Amino acid sequence: MSPKRGKPVVAIVGMGLIGGSLGLAIRKARIAREVVGICRRPSSIAPAIRMGACDRGTIRLKQGIDGADLIFLCTPPQEIMRLARVIARQAEPGVVVTDVGSTKSLIVRNIESGTPDSFLFVGGHPLAGSEQAGLKASRPGLFRGATWILTRSRRTSPKAIASLAKFLSKLRVSIAVMSPQEHDEILALTSHLPHAVAGTLAGSLKSSHLRFAAGGFKDVTRIASSDPNLWGEIFLSNRHEVADALSRFRLNLGQVERWIRRGEGRSLVRFLVRARALREKIHGIGQPSRHD
Amino acid sequence: MSPKRGKPVVAIVGMGLIGGSLGLAIRKARIAREVVGICRRPSSIAPAIRMGACDRGTIRLKQGIDGADLIFLCTPPQEIMRLARVIARQAEPGVVVTDVGSTKSLIVRNIESGTPDSFLFVGGHPLAGSEQAGLKASRPGLFRGATWILTRSRRTSPKAIASLAKFLSKLRVSIAVMSPQEHDEILALTSHLPHAVAGTLAGSLKSSHLRFAAGGFKDVTRIASSDPNLWGEIFLSNRHEVADALSRFRLNLGQVERWIRRGEGRSLVRFLVRARALREKIHGIGQPSRHD
Repeated sequence: MSPKRGKPVVAIVGMGLIGGSLGLAIRKARIAREVVGICRRPSSIAPAIRMGACDRGTIRLKQGIDGADLIFLCTPPQEIMRLARVIARQAEPGVVVTDVGSTKSLIVRNIESGTPDSFLFVGGHPLAGSEQAGLKASRPGLFRGATWILTRSRRTSPKAIASLAKFLSKLRVSIAVMSPQEHDEILALTSHLPHAVAGTLAGSLKSSHLRFAAGGFKDVTRIASSDPNLWGEIFLSNRHEVADALSRFRLNLGQVERWIRRGEGRSLVRFLVRARALREKIHGIGQPSRHD
Repeated sequence: MSPKRGKPVVAIVGMGLIGGSLGLAIRKARIAREVVGICRRPSSIAPAIRMGACDRGTIRLKQGIDGADLIFLCTPPQEIMRLARVIARQAEPGVVVTDVGSTKSLIVRNIESGTPDSFLFVGGHPLAGSEQAGLKASRPGLFRGATWILTRSRRTSPKAIASLAKFLSKLRVSIAVMSPQEHDEILALTSHLPHAVAGTLAGSLKSSHLRFAAGGFKDVTRIASSDPNLWGEIFLSNRHEVADALSRFRLNLGQVERWIRRGEGRSLVRFLVRARALREKIHGIGQPSRHD
């Protein structure tokens, strides 16, 4: 990423919720010379330009990345891995390629094994999203104040990380750099586990009980309204960590179940007090959630 | 509940989130001759009157219920049971007493065994709330559109249920009548289980991961910010149903874990599709949640 004239040309592959919001944020911050949106459907190009998510759009990958200094892959994991290999054969030297996939070990390993060492790939993951999908749900503030993880493997170019971090920090995100494996261990607990739990809760509901599901149930299961295909892919691309997190969670849940069954109120309340205290330390609690 | 002059005099014991919101709603709908708030602390009386949650307030139970046609017990379960016995010795004949406790079998059984058959108690539970507590969080619209469950036991007076249902329906709630046992089975699944799950998720978080807990985690665990003592009481007062619901939920979670560990994407996605479809049938999904 060494733009010839000041600001970089940015290409975004996949103009869904994340890609669209990224384009909006970059254009609003005026930190790119040009934002090119690469869409899957021709019909998405005009709306993407109209809402300000890109300066120009195309459905042709080669045309879209031509002249780009920085390329964001904003598609589900399988497609990220396929695209990176294609781009590695087409992109000019020095172009930095990053992604926004919710898992990192598999993606980074797969891309590094299928591309030359000179290909500058940096795994990325903005911790922001919504159960809503698609360009329509995009908004420029989606990432504001969020943590954006970048991964460092043995092959990752320190210069590529540094320039990408510098670029992203202008979007007012907080950058965290860690290994792909560390990312996957943490996200299994903070994101993939809650999604699996929310889905299982929603899936356990009987139709006849729908009327009696109030605000608490709706909130706990909100993320169960996320795209099932995307989340199926995410779970499987971090399967060991997610399965282990589920296994430990089931043990914790078993402990709570025993306290309740045996009427051990004191242990139960102590646990609930600690849970509440932990939750209230999460950054931004007390502020409206991003989907409101 | 046979008011001498048209509209009933209503007494609300416990001016927290539910009692305060109920007073606000009843006064806004102008369906009571007078709303009397019975507070635990003398310092709560002036704020309750100032915000419009009651016409007058007192900390003396006897004084507060004197002349009331309808009494709402809006305290945690243990206190509801104690209060009902006291009121049964003091209230005039014909007064209808109801509660808003989140569990019903224990409360109804306990009150019916400790009061004479002539005491007109109807178990009640409005399916509305917030993780915020206290009079300050009260608002007149808390119950609008919500389902309000009334329970019918062998002893419950049909006339008392009918007059209470008629009164509540003026608050634009939807009334459902069922047995205390049926209430507890349903609420174990739609409310108590999600609370236990949210608490366990929040309690499983490591401090070092707080920074990486994004919107999804915050939503799933929102109700883990509820009052631990109140929820400890609720879990234990419906302990068998809640423990059984947890046990079945752990089995379902184990199935999801196996699909993920074995990479059975098709079963996983089919399950997530069904979960999403079920969730989106819940009344009011797509509208902002009540705490916003």
